[in-house]
Amino acid sequence: MEFELKLPEWLNRINSRAADITHNSIEERAGFVINLSHLNIEHGTGGPFGAAIFDINSGSLVSAGTNMVVPMGCSIAHAEMIAIMLAQKKLGTYRLPGPSKYQLVSSCQPCAMCMGAIPWSGVGSLVCSGREEDAKAIGFDEGDKPSDWIEKYEARNIEVIIDVLRSEACQVLRDYSKKNSQTY
Amino acid sequence: MEFELKLPEWLNRINSRAADITHNSIEERAGFVINLSHLNIEHGTGGPFGAAIFDINSGSLVSAGTNMVVPMGCSIAHAEMIAIMLAQKKLGTYRLPGPSKYQLVSSCQPCAMCMGAIPWSGVGSLVCSGREEDAKAIGFDEGDKPSDWIEKYEARNIEVIIDVLRSEACQVLRDYSKKNSQTY
Repeated sequence: MEFELKLPEWLNRINSRAADITHNSIEERAGFVINLSHLNIEHGTGGPFGAAIFDINSGSLVSAGTNMVVPMGCSIAHAEMIAIMLAQKKLGTYRLPGPSKYQLVSSCQPCAMCMGAIPWSGVGSLVCSGREEDAKAIGFDEGDKPSDWIEKYEARNIEVIIDVLRSEACQVLRDYSKKNSQTY
Repeated sequence: MEFELKLPEWLNRINSRAADITHNSIEERAGFVINLSHLNIEHGTGGPFGAAIFDINSGSLVSAGTNMVVPMGCSIAHAEMIAIMLAQKKLGTYRLPGPSKYQLVSSCQPCAMCMGAIPWSGVGSLVCSGREEDAKAIGFDEGDKPSDWIEKYEARNIEVIIDVLRSEACQVLRDYSKKNSQTY
């Protein structure tokens, strides 16, 4: 009894050429993950969320994930979790070395599960585009997080940058909502 | 680029014969997962935590997981997450049907990540042996959960039963602590 996390072909291609993908600014990185969320609904391979891990300083892409809960039949397959698992596999470690080497960029603020998972991953920085309330507005449940989770991250030396290209991320959420009623 | 969750052979054998394993009482189920946590440290296949999903009414085992963070090189591979992924794979769904059909039994209260993941899994009941402070006492970080997470679960119709065979679970934590300094 084993579990294989099989990426869709288009996302596999992006991960295969990660070494050639570099985004220097926070806005470029946010644009990249918002595009992942857009491609995920265009390809019908999951929910409207994308995430990626970058080398903070060089801007090199380490791993890219999208929400694959429904096609993978796995409630854990959120974009952030996929990006974390792939990055750790690639670097051969259960904790990315830090504290300020790797940045997780997500098209939306993390749900309660991903909020809990991020500190275990070793990333030292989190960039989010959409807010929790933007995902809720189209019917997604974000779970129960401490209301001061951003302060708690900062106490753990994890920087949090929010609202980067928020309106672009919200547009993808609305596009998904128009085509799909499946939220979870 | 793919990710394979490969169980250790001894745990694979337990999952393979899940249909033949039935535990009717809460205490028997807790004893089963505490034994998983014990076997995991005996076999050197990960941290001192075990979890399993049972059919609440029949007592049949659906899936069994242990902490495999270090050997798998994956910060997400907590016992509860493994049990959830395996159960969803087995039943072919991203949300176990409920609300009171499946029970997650864990040798310890969930960390922040697992606390966030459990409501997405579809389980209707959570049974825990050790407490959060028992894991912290040997050096594990449990993350930042809302202080009223049990009430929040109950508001989601997830029953929570704590402290079942707590002292037996604590003994395994202490056994691990004596042999290992690796906590995370």
